[in-house]
Amino acid sequence: MTFQEKLRAAAAQNRSLLCVGLDPDQAQLPACVRDQDNPTLYFLKHLIDATADLVCAYKPNFAFFGALGEAGWPTLKATLEHIPPSIPVLLDAKVGDIGNTAEQYARMFFEVLGADALTVNPYMGRDAVAPFLAYPDKGVFLLCLTSNKGAADFEQQELADGPLYLRVARKACEWNTAHNCGLVVGATQSAAFAQLRQLAPDLPFLVPGVGAQGGDLEAVVRHGADAKGGGLLINASRAVLYASAGTDFAAAGRRAAQQLREQIEACRAA
Amino acid sequence: MTFQEKLRAAAAQNRSLLCVGLDPDQAQLPACVRDQDNPTLYFLKHLIDATADLVCAYKPNFAFFGALGEAGWPTLKATLEHIPPSIPVLLDAKVGDIGNTAEQYARMFFEVLGADALTVNPYMGRDAVAPFLAYPDKGVFLLCLTSNKGAADFEQQELADGPLYLRVARKACEWNTAHNCGLVVGATQSAAFAQLRQLAPDLPFLVPGVGAQGGDLEAVVRHGADAKGGGLLINASRAVLYASAGTDFAAAGRRAAQQLREQIEACRAA
Repeated sequence: MTFQEKLRAAAAQNRSLLCVGLDPDQAQLPACVRDQDNPTLYFLKHLIDATADLVCAYKPNFAFFGALGEAGWPTLKATLEHIPPSIPVLLDAKVGDIGNTAEQYARMFFEVLGADALTVNPYMGRDAVAPFLAYPDKGVFLLCLTSNKGAADFEQQELADGPLYLRVARKACEWNTAHNCGLVVGATQSAAFAQLRQLAPDLPFLVPGVGAQGGDLEAVVRHGADAKGGGLLINASRAVLYASAGTDFAAAGRRAAQQLREQIEACRAA
Repeated sequence: MTFQEKLRAAAAQNRSLLCVGLDPDQAQLPACVRDQDNPTLYFLKHLIDATADLVCAYKPNFAFFGALGEAGWPTLKATLEHIPPSIPVLLDAKVGDIGNTAEQYARMFFEVLGADALTVNPYMGRDAVAPFLAYPDKGVFLLCLTSNKGAADFEQQELADGPLYLRVARKACEWNTAHNCGLVVGATQSAAFAQLRQLAPDLPFLVPGVGAQGGDLEAVVRHGADAKGGGLLINASRAVLYASAGTDFAAAGRRAAQQLREQIEACRAA
């Protein structure tokens, strides 16, 4: 089963376009998990159990595991193993390097860790992206227009035929011969969604920035959904993970995820 | 001691602008190391021992360690511990993410692993770079104009005031308030060195691409050196690591490094 098929099946099964980001920030873990053998793993397992019927995907961010040092790899691996096999895993590492190095990253994330999809930084161009696209069953999400303020520094700069991020989107369509490419488009960039969806009618968009970053969910769904009302992975991390700092963290995370899924579904119905 | 001071001291001590890239590709390890408990570590330790008096820095590439799975982190850590403390370590991971994630990468590479410098992808703009620049004693090398063919796809695209990579260089100068920023400029891009050095007279340039990728060493040194004839970390990975597939791999790596250092010194003297 390809990433795209797995994503569509999970989205249909759970009636959800919600992707939950797994960013275990040590400074924000609830006090009640700190006595566990592996607080991060305990915390994430409970959140996964509490939300697995509400999401279309999980998005672990590699940095938060890497910052754990030696414990990072086994913790990430055990987290991935705890995710039900029907839910796709989109690993967020924003990698990008020359060909022989990109091959190592592809091996690391797709083969050794078994992720279904990966975020990739397009700055270095086609040959830095190709080793990932060479896995037809995996998803490759190119950073296009991100949710942060710094998007103005380079991504939104004007080339002869439009801003840089549109060129990234056009190139993604051109390189998408195996139908495994997607784009990262921040929810705070709602004005850009209509044009990007027109340009890339079939690409899935990973959309961070609806929670803590304050993006406009309604505009994202209205302008960003594909012809079938899907094609979006709307990500929330902090809003779900840290919904409560108490012993009810998993239940509170579930409520936050439920609320977000319902908001998204209401937008889709409208 | 800051990264810049450590770099200058190592370059002066070893009379070298050569940086050796530590990219342990499992498919290329000499047969004679395969029986070792940790073939990668054994291989790298011998190469470090054979070259530590010839280099101004080592540049381990995270991907090649990550691809080892669970063994990757301890192998990387033990490799870094084996590098003499007088030689700076530039960790090549080309990271870039929003602020709270970038902070995790900074912690991972600067604090937990203790690297002296890091490569960072500038695509997401200032707030994705700032958490690294916030470490005044560490070096932050922004990808500017890379050595691969894909550089034409985005990096060399023309904005109103010149190509994108020049904007990255101008921003790097603007963001360099702690004097800890550098640029990555591929050796295959020799035509761009004079302009980049004029624009950024004081920034160190990490220059990959002289070995396997075939860059023009003489043009790099002539146009890329700073006013004192330094400011370059000229990287070779495969040309040194895989100089021999036999039991003489370390001696052959030393000869390759020596030859490159002498070529660079000859260019500096000219």
